[in-house]
Amino acid sequence: MKAPDRVLLAHGGGGSLSGRLIREVFLSAFDNPALARLTDSAIVSLGSQSLAFTTDAYVVTPPFFPGGNIGTLAVAGTVNDLAVSGAVPRFLSCSFILEEGLLLDDLRRVVASMADTAAEAGVILATGDTKVVERGGADGIFITTAGIGELRDLPEGWLRPRPGDQVLINGSVGDHGLTVLAAREGLRFDNPLRSDCAPLNGLIEHLFAAGLRLRWMRDATRGGLAAVLNELADGHTWGVAVRAESVPVSPAARSLGEILGIDPLYVANEGKVVVVVAEDDARAALEVMRAHPLGRDAAAIGSLEEGLDGLVTVETYLGGRRILDMPLGEQLPRIC
Amino acid sequence: MKAPDRVLLAHGGGGSLSGRLIREVFLSAFDNPALARLTDSAIVSLGSQSLAFTTDAYVVTPPFFPGGNIGTLAVAGTVNDLAVSGAVPRFLSCSFILEEGLLLDDLRRVVASMADTAAEAGVILATGDTKVVERGGADGIFITTAGIGELRDLPEGWLRPRPGDQVLINGSVGDHGLTVLAAREGLRFDNPLRSDCAPLNGLIEHLFAAGLRLRWMRDATRGGLAAVLNELADGHTWGVAVRAESVPVSPAARSLGEILGIDPLYVANEGKVVVVVAEDDARAALEVMRAHPLGRDAAAIGSLEEGLDGLVTVETYLGGRRILDMPLGEQLPRIC
Repeated sequence: MKAPDRVLLAHGGGGSLSGRLIREVFLSAFDNPALARLTDSAIVSLGSQSLAFTTDAYVVTPPFFPGGNIGTLAVAGTVNDLAVSGAVPRFLSCSFILEEGLLLDDLRRVVASMADTAAEAGVILATGDTKVVERGGADGIFITTAGIGELRDLPEGWLRPRPGDQVLINGSVGDHGLTVLAAREGLRFDNPLRSDCAPLNGLIEHLFAAGLRLRWMRDATRGGLAAVLNELADGHTWGVAVRAESVPVSPAARSLGEILGIDPLYVANEGKVVVVVAEDDARAALEVMRAHPLGRDAAAIGSLEEGLDGLVTVETYLGGRRILDMPLGEQLPRIC
Repeated sequence: MKAPDRVLLAHGGGGSLSGRLIREVFLSAFDNPALARLTDSAIVSLGSQSLAFTTDAYVVTPPFFPGGNIGTLAVAGTVNDLAVSGAVPRFLSCSFILEEGLLLDDLRRVVASMADTAAEAGVILATGDTKVVERGGADGIFITTAGIGELRDLPEGWLRPRPGDQVLINGSVGDHGLTVLAAREGLRFDNPLRSDCAPLNGLIEHLFAAGLRLRWMRDATRGGLAAVLNELADGHTWGVAVRAESVPVSPAARSLGEILGIDPLYVANEGKVVVVVAEDDARAALEVMRAHPLGRDAAAIGSLEEGLDGLVTVETYLGGRRILDMPLGEQLPRIC
């Protein structure tokens, strides 16, 4: 494929085109060790303190959807990026770009959700900024949050996943993206989908506190579970073998996905974390997750297998295996 | 004036309407001591480390203008917010919202300027994010940076300005806003204006290193010198007495301002810092500033005077005094 000379929607989708943009435009200019790791958060040192630092822009449309709004998302998303990096989220900044004409009551609702989510996560919204652009210059409300977390003592073997390790997830996949899509298109259901957006630092805190041999952790946002597992396996001799029937998918997400031809494994989540843990600790980790309100449907969905050469495979119901590719772009733009 | 029920352009202008939005919408929801100080950066503690944390969104149009572009601005602006808080800027995050169809070459130019400005300022661009919105969903490119700085040992009397203190500025005011306005409107001149956008942490470092009794410092961005001086005086029994003829204004800015009926004292700068220093140290501070390339035209522009009751006055050429009000909004939207 010839490299495009303009920005495409798919460049923002969290898939391989996003990766190419990051490598070719950003990494080549901003060459430094913190950025080059390309994890959810940069790990930096300030004086004697190691800290995690991350940022995300939120442009979801519509800004209000069942289960949350752009404000919930902007706080939870950044909290989760810090937490999966092994940090205790502490301080957030929030920067607003508002379109002239936005209802102040809508802004107040968003801001109230941010305050609620910050309180739930135990983080402080410490600093902010507001810009206003003329009507048509932006779409309603965009929020960018950045977050600082305190790096915890990490278990031996952290960031060194290996064959035999088990892959866990704290619940069903695809709900967030499909909820936003349904809200955007005005689709209605008897049994409505709800976004899963939530701060996961509490659940993750319990996992670390349990003294388990945790090896790797990432929240499955843009590009869904498929993108995250491909990031996990990329560049290794081993790969990830997923058991399709073990991946939790809500009935509502499954049926909407089937109608629209969208695989929930590729759909963004905002309250799901993929955890890789040593085989012997998998059962204990699952128990810790299930004891938390945000992990009730936690499941072991696969394992790391030698010889898969960086690929992610899915074992189907009939016992066959197919490859779960890295998505090129996002099937659903402006989902977060 | 009846409170508006929608967001107005003036809400983003850095004037009194911005202040009202911040107090009524954000502060009431995000109640915490770090935010309540409403300074350029929040000062927070992480372990034993005190740090400054700040964020700004950049929506300037056009994104390229004489003297810089949105990327230069996004790095310099956040560096300056940290530096005037008494911190040594260390790490920046950068988050992009891109409009589908943006030329990748334009993005590369912006990113190259960010890298150059970061190198000049000695900060590391540690983490980032990119979102893409469909054509018409945003205007080209928006950048939000957040920054972390290491708080330095601050001089006794810092943040306690008092009558008799002198007010200094490192050079001419109004160039940035008028340059962007001229670029936007396609105005051409024989002697073109240039934006002053630049990272000021080097100059500020020299001021701190000189052991002067610095009392207060702020960069004069949105709302210009007038807004910053009003923020300085607000709530005090003293005020700021400015000598109009001492405020440096470039001939090009003065003449464009006169043609357009815009007072350069109200126009945004992106490379100007207002410094309040004890009277006896004013001359030394001025020498330190003038020895730096970004302070060649530094000037003492006034002093803090008892009895002015929180007001800013300007002594005119004829010896009269007028009040330099806090601007309501920004005369020039999307200037940064």
